[in-house]
Amino acid sequence: MTVPTESTSGPISGSGASVAVTNIGELFTGDLLADTPYGVISDAALVIEGGHVAWTGPRARCPAADTSYDAGGRAVLPGFVDSHSHLVFAGERSGEFAARMAGAAYSAGGIRSTVAATRAASDEQLHARVAGLVGEMIRQGTTTVEIKSGYGLTAHDEQRSLAIARQFTDETTFLGAHVVPDGIAVEDYVELVTGPMLAAAAPYARWIDAFCEVGAFDADQARRVLEAGAAAGLRGRLHANQLGPGPGVQLGVELGLLAVEHCTHLTAADVAALRDSGTIATLLPGVEFSTRQPYPDARGLLDGGVRIALASDCNPGSCFTSSMPLCVALAVREMGMTPAEAVSAATLGGADALGRIDVGALVPGRRADLVILDAPSHSYLAYRPGVPLVASVWRSGRPT
Amino acid sequence: MTVPTESTSGPISGSGASVAVTNIGELFTGDLLADTPYGVISDAALVIEGGHVAWTGPRARCPAADTSYDAGGRAVLPGFVDSHSHLVFAGERSGEFAARMAGAAYSAGGIRSTVAATRAASDEQLHARVAGLVGEMIRQGTTTVEIKSGYGLTAHDEQRSLAIARQFTDETTFLGAHVVPDGIAVEDYVELVTGPMLAAAAPYARWIDAFCEVGAFDADQARRVLEAGAAAGLRGRLHANQLGPGPGVQLGVELGLLAVEHCTHLTAADVAALRDSGTIATLLPGVEFSTRQPYPDARGLLDGGVRIALASDCNPGSCFTSSMPLCVALAVREMGMTPAEAVSAATLGGADALGRIDVGALVPGRRADLVILDAPSHSYLAYRPGVPLVASVWRSGRPT
Repeated sequence: MTVPTESTSGPISGSGASVAVTNIGELFTGDLLADTPYGVISDAALVIEGGHVAWTGPRARCPAADTSYDAGGRAVLPGFVDSHSHLVFAGERSGEFAARMAGAAYSAGGIRSTVAATRAASDEQLHARVAGLVGEMIRQGTTTVEIKSGYGLTAHDEQRSLAIARQFTDETTFLGAHVVPDGIAVEDYVELVTGPMLAAAAPYARWIDAFCEVGAFDADQARRVLEAGAAAGLRGRLHANQLGPGPGVQLGVELGLLAVEHCTHLTAADVAALRDSGTIATLLPGVEFSTRQPYPDARGLLDGGVRIALASDCNPGSCFTSSMPLCVALAVREMGMTPAEAVSAATLGGADALGRIDVGALVPGRRADLVILDAPSHSYLAYRPGVPLVASVWRSGRPT
Repeated sequence: MTVPTESTSGPISGSGASVAVTNIGELFTGDLLADTPYGVISDAALVIEGGHVAWTGPRARCPAADTSYDAGGRAVLPGFVDSHSHLVFAGERSGEFAARMAGAAYSAGGIRSTVAATRAASDEQLHARVAGLVGEMIRQGTTTVEIKSGYGLTAHDEQRSLAIARQFTDETTFLGAHVVPDGIAVEDYVELVTGPMLAAAAPYARWIDAFCEVGAFDADQARRVLEAGAAAGLRGRLHANQLGPGPGVQLGVELGLLAVEHCTHLTAADVAALRDSGTIATLLPGVEFSTRQPYPDARGLLDGGVRIALASDCNPGSCFTSSMPLCVALAVREMGMTPAEAVSAATLGGADALGRIDVGALVPGRRADLVILDAPSHSYLAYRPGVPLVASVWRSGRPT
């Protein structure tokens, strides 16, 4: 269900023992039903049993536990749930990035250069790349990550991409419909994606996704991909409305998806559809940062009643950051979210976008996936942008 | 001359021994006189003797050395020279930050709340704060840092602020003329700053600075402060044109300063004055990020022949980042600089702004202060924003 444990060493041992994390300067539980906004508790404690949260509350009322850990007055928040990333690839595109910063336009076509490099790479090379990026994510506080395929674009290469991704997370997404590779007509390619490629990929995937955008797949093609995936037992996701207005968001709502992703260019009708359906808008501000595009209007979405998730979209083309703290800082600086709204979107929002009720908040029963910041408050993720503030990351109740 | 060594352990021992750093994927020497732009050498090596750079060039031509270190194909660049920071303070202003992000305007008045907290803090508390921030800077690749006073604003508190700063760097700046504290008329305060406060501060400072801005000090007052400092042996710096157009930049040029700092709001006449004088414009993009103000036009300045330095301005009010990598990323994303221009401005630019010819570039004779990135190129600092890419920091030829 999550990224694997790199190390289980640390002060805590014995999964059956209870652990009290005490002297928490600020505990951001993320509980939207609590008496305080986002369930924030000052001078708090948290008790872990069996890898899950058993109790949270004021430190003075902390129940007894087998062992304890002093958080030193620092802030504790849920581990980040990064619900959108593309980590299975080879090569890099720093030259394309520099050209874009010098004025070249972003287009989806650059994906093809990564496809060529990925096909040419060995399984071992791809595995090592994913391992490196997942390790980097964990060190930055991400405790659950979704990983897409989409740089193979053959049945074989999509299957092996997903098989590799599956070694790091259960949240794997088949994205054969990323772009149409060279040398094949789009309709023929949709047949391939919905036929043999899906058959090869499905055993390794939980989700199916399509890039519904001018230059990639239109609404009809995206619909066929997601419907074929559903028939194979895969739940749908959708890249929608990234590069311009389009039909993707409303298609996603019609298909009952948990989330539609990017949502950079929305019409009033798109916003209304999201609000009425409860479909989450997953915003990826690292992409706008790294493509110098206008940011989505998160403030307007929130004020309009739309639920938001934040994710990294870590990929070698449009956004090569793996930093959820940066996404939080950008959400505050560029999209009008409060620090608490941004942290919630990067934790509970991501969990909801993945349909996960076991992560994303530090409430009893959910997994004790948490981040200890070298800071007294969650707001420091925005107040101190770029500074590596993640002091410690715990998964299932153990320091990584 | 630089931040102190926290640890001298590592593979290198014996300051007299020569060390060859080999297998450098990309060496960004920063040498503007080299045959390649910014003296970038691929597949390079670097030899250190006596803590200084002795040789750089293609790996295949690397001379023999007593010991060697394999950089693993990673990029090596000069350590960052952060020429503008305010680290001696107590308290914090995350609440003011959050209010500003919610729409409140930034003003210099918030400085006074930090002044009250700083005066109330013990020397030990102030020292611990500076030590924490300097350590954080080192881990992010900063090997030389300038530290200002300016939150004491009495002779005693400015003196002790500088005495503490002096324990971490020789680049200390007396900024009594930061704001006018409560309870004193501005003219009386200028008398204090240029009289007893300067006398108390001067033994601990190399530089004198003034905040020349509406709400702080006008051009005449700033001039009197810098002239009094000069008479006491201190070189001048100037906060200029941050919050709006003003006389600061041209005053700095007239006074022959090495650099004027902020430069957010410049007129054509300001740009011409900078170009003709060679005075460096020190840009602090973390401030614009954290105050949601428009960024200075670095591209226009460079194209107009103005030299640029990048610095963090790390302080609890307008910008609490200590991250020079973030400043580089912002310079590329928001100010139109190329990655190489931004890295040069954050290294050699900072050194030039401090009048330092011993740091800021990896050329023979300069100090072997260097950063090894977990990346193949300096451009990754912009290509991978927010990701902690600094793998290793060496000062005077030794890993920290």
